[in-house]
Formats: sequence, C-alpha cells, structure tokens
Amino acid sequence: MAEAPGGTATAARRVVVVGIGMGPQHVTVEAAAAIGSVDVVLAFVKSADDPLLAVRREVCDLHGVELVVLDDPPRARHDDVDYDAAVDAWHAARAEAWEAALATHPGDVGLLVWGDPSLYDSTLRLLDRLQERLPLAVEVVPGISSLQLLAARHRLVLHDVGAPLHVTTARRFAEALAQGQRNVVVVLNRRLDALADPALADWSIWWGANLGAPGEQLVAGRVGEVLADIEAARERARAHDGWVLDLHLLRAPAGDAP
Amino acid sequence: MAEAPGGTATAARRVVVVGIGMGPQHVTVEAAAAIGSVDVVLAFVKSADDPLLAVRREVCDLHGVELVVLDDPPRARHDDVDYDAAVDAWHAARAEAWEAALATHPGDVGLLVWGDPSLYDSTLRLLDRLQERLPLAVEVVPGISSLQLLAARHRLVLHDVGAPLHVTTARRFAEALAQGQRNVVVVLNRRLDALADPALADWSIWWGANLGAPGEQLVAGRVGEVLADIEAARERARAHDGWVLDLHLLRAPAGDAP
Ligand SMILES: C[S@@+](CC[C@H](N)C(=O)[O-])C[C@H]1O[C@@H](n2cnc3c(N)ncnc32)[C@H](O)[C@@H]1O
Ligand SMILES: C[S@@+](CC[C@H](N)C(=O)[O-])C[C@H]1O[C@@H](n2cnc3c(N)ncnc32)[C@H](O)[C@@H]1O
Repeated sequence: MAEAPGGTATAARRVVVVGIGMGPQHVTVEAAAAIGSVDVVLAFVKSADDPLLAVRREVCDLHGVELVVLDDPPRARHDDVDYDAAVDAWHAARAEAWEAALATHPGDVGLLVWGDPSLYDSTLRLLDRLQERLPLAVEVVPGISSLQLLAARHRLVLHDVGAPLHVTTARRFAEALAQGQRNVVVVLNRRLDALADPALADWSIWWGANLGAPGEQLVAGRVGEVLADIEAARERARAHDGWVLDLHLLRAPAGDAP
Repeated sequence: MAEAPGGTATAARRVVVVGIGMGPQHVTVEAAAAIGSVDVVLAFVKSADDPLLAVRREVCDLHGVELVVLDDPPRARHDDVDYDAAVDAWHAARAEAWEAALATHPGDVGLLVWGDPSLYDSTLRLLDRLQERLPLAVEVVPGISSLQLLAARHRLVLHDVGAPLHVTTARRFAEALAQGQRNVVVVLNRRLDALADPALADWSIWWGANLGAPGEQLVAGRVGEVLADIEAARERARAHDGWVLDLHLLRAPAGDAP
C-alpha cells in the first residue's frame, strides 16, 4: 500500500508476468491459470505485424482473455550511440507508455513474455522502474526459454559433465572467447560473422532458428564445415516465417586446453 | 532402423525425455501430451523415499500413465576418486540397468526429468551411451529449470543488461571467480562455505531452496549480511520437506571492476 497524494492508501496493481515459451505448446499449468486470472493482457509491440504478437494473441484466445495491443516506443539502434545510455532512455520512454496504459486499463494485468522472463528480456526491469511511480504487486511465472528448446531439439545437455555454462550475446561473444570460455550459448545474433574466425573452425556448433515456429531450422556440426549451411538455413527460416531469431551453442574440441 | 543379429531390422524404441519442472504446476501442454503418449514411465531412483519420486508419481497419476520404479546403481561419492572416472563408471552401470529395464517393459517409454533435461542432468548422456547398444528414437520435451524458478520468485533477470550469465557448480565456483565472472548462478551446492570468502561480502545474493515444494525458502541481500539467514533457511527447508536442494545467483557490486 502506498499513500496517494490525496492521503488515501492506493492498493498495488497486480501485474502478472507470464513466460509463454515459444508458443501455446509451452504454456505450463500455472501459466494457464495465471493468464486466466487477469482482467486484460497488454502487449507492447514495435509493429502491428510483430510475428510474436500472433503467438500472444493465440495464447489469449485459447484462455479467453482480452488482448490489448499498445505501441512500444522505438529504440535507438545505432552502433555508435552509447549502448547503456540508449537502453536507459528507451526504458524510461517505455515506462511512461506503460504507466499510461495501466491507467487506461483497470484490473489485474497480464504481460506475456516470449520464452522466459529471466533471460534477455526487459519486462521485469521496466516494471522495477514503473514501481517507483506506481505501486505494483508483480508476480512472475517462468516459461520455456529458447536455450532449452535449442537443447531439446538437438537432444543436448548445454554443458560438459559438471562443467560451467556461459551464456552471452553476439555483441559480447569475443569477450567470452578472450576469457577462455569453451562452452558458450550465444543469443541476440544479428550477423554470424564471428563464426568465420579460423580459431573456431574445429569447435562444435548446435544452431537453431525460429524454434517452435513453422520455419524452424536446425544445423549441427563442426563450425568450419557447417557455416554455409547455417547461412542458408537462416535464409530459409526468414523466407518461411518472415522473421528470423536464432541462437547457438559453441563447444571447444575436447582436450583443446585454452 | 538397425540390423538385428538375425538379419531382421529392429525398430528403434521410442523414448521420450520430459522435463517436468519442479512439479505438476510446471507441466507444459506438450509435456502433458508426451506423457499421455507413452506406454509406461520408468523412474530410476536411489532410494524408495526419493523425494522427487513423489512428484513424478503425482504427474503420472494426473496423466493416467503407469510408473515403474527401478533401482539406480549407487554412485561413488568420495572426494578423492577421480571425478570424471567415477561419473563414467556410474554411467556405464546405469546404462546396463536401463537396458535391462527397457527389455522388460515393451512399448514407448517416458522418462521424467526434474527441471529441464539440458541442465545438470545425466539422462540424455545416458541415452547416448545406451544408443550404442540399442537403437533408440529419443525425443526431448523441455521443462522449467530451477534457475528460472529462482529468478521468478525473486522477480529477477538473471544477468545485467546485455551482459553474460555464467552458470556453474559449487565445486567449480572458485574457478569462475578466478576467471573474473561477476554474475554467477551456482547449482549443486553441498555446503555454502565458499560464501564466507570476505571478497564476496559486498556481492548481492539471491538464494532459494526447495523451490516449488512446501518447504520453499528465499533469501536475498548482501552476502556478508544474509549468510546466517541462508544457513537457517536451509535447515528450515530440510526440516519441512526432509530434503534440501538449493541454488543462488551471485552478482558483484556495480562498478566494482574485476
Ligand atoms: C530478446 S532475447 C529473448 C529470449 C527469451 N526471453 C527466451 O527466454 O528465450 C531474443 C533472443 O533469443 C533467441 N530466441 C528467441 N526466440 C527464439 C526462437 N524461437 N528460435 C531461436 N532463437 C530464439 C535469439 O537469440 C533472440 O535473438
Ligand atoms: C542435478 S541438478 C538438476 C537441475 C535440473 N535439471 C533443473 O533444470 O533445475 C540439481 C541442482 O539443481 C538445483 N535445484 C534443483 N531443484 C531445485 C529446487 N526445487 N530448489 C532449489 N534448487 C534446486 C540445486 O542446485 C540442485 O543441486
């Protein structure tokens, strides 16, 4: 409870953040219950043909909950602006847009997150920021992440026996290599240039695009041998679904000490 | 299809490895369908009062599938034996036990994995080994991992904005620190001694035990301030459920360069 300016206590708004995996097939029993428990689901999208919007719509329809689609403020994408500052400004603009949306839509609110909310998703950080202006009671329901789906499709454990797993972004992949990481999941790819590094030619790669979507693609092998296959599969995914999201696990050859 | 010694083709046995998260509440739509599609679920347990067996039984009952409980060969636990060799011998013994069990139970087989099969679980490696003797058609269905449930309970993203996530075991935590990791999830704790390191006193910790079980415990704060709370909560978890499984996320203070 927070004190409203008028002096009366304001009840916290219930906001349920639900991981929906890569589609309705990944909705858990508790996620279904959470979706069924809210008055409205808000979806903030960058464009009306956001491919992931269709999946959210399908999940809402299945559970009989209204979906309200809202414009998400655009994000600076230039490689030359300071990354942290750009993200920060974008989050501030989003928090404002979200505050306005919450004011217009009373009751308990659901937010459906692609995959799992704990991995490379900004919803929870945004709610932290909003929390400073508006009392919120946030609940989180986990969902199947793209990492797990990649592993399932390739029937893989994501790390060697008892060994670490390092997850990073394409932007920071070089850092992981320099650190001596030998088992790395890479997300947020935009290009696959980094894989052309001759030092990686003998590493194993397990790659997947559009996992769970009709255009799903899988490639596995030695990096030096499958790079062209991956590029081709990436284009097939894009051609099929009209968008492409991909990630991969890279593992150094056994015995190849750093 | 593989050639049997008699010359007739042997059809591969269908084995479905299903991640069930931390209980029935985490079963996904596709996991439920997979469980419903098999003739029998096999559970290999170390003791008849294995706490996680009760959860598997509950899931099988909910989906009307027979559960057959089998003894799992014991594993060498001495800290002085070679870790890799011990794991290897154990896996070989398990593969034999599993082969015998598959021979006794015809039809499609389900194996229910705690959490997700891709993280610190040996089921898939074991099936790889079995595959060398017996043609298997292995399908994998992902499940909610304990990492995701920890994050959900603390309403956390597991890494800083755009930054890496490092996951390791308590056994290898010191290595991660030495490498300069500043955001680490630690699983397979047996003791929490490593947290007493004064260098960690200012780090943040988000800890959880028996997540999803009745005795679930959560503690968050500065390592130096909450260590005693964690030890006490760990004992409460054990007292409540009769077992304890815990994990935590550790994060270095912002701006504290390695
Ligand atoms: C913004 S992150 C979101 C991750 C998400 N929260 C999760 O749990 O998977 C998006 C990145 O995840 C990966 N990703 C998400 N969905 C994917 C899919 N269906 N197939 C392959 N990779 C995917 C890609 O690397 C993509 O750039
Ligand atoms: C053998 S690993 C299995 C991990 C599992 N495959 C998963 O996806 O979570 C077991 C370790 O996972 C963590 N763990 C598993 N279940 C847990 C729970 N319910 N609460 C807290 N930690 C758990 C603990 O660190 C434990 O030592």
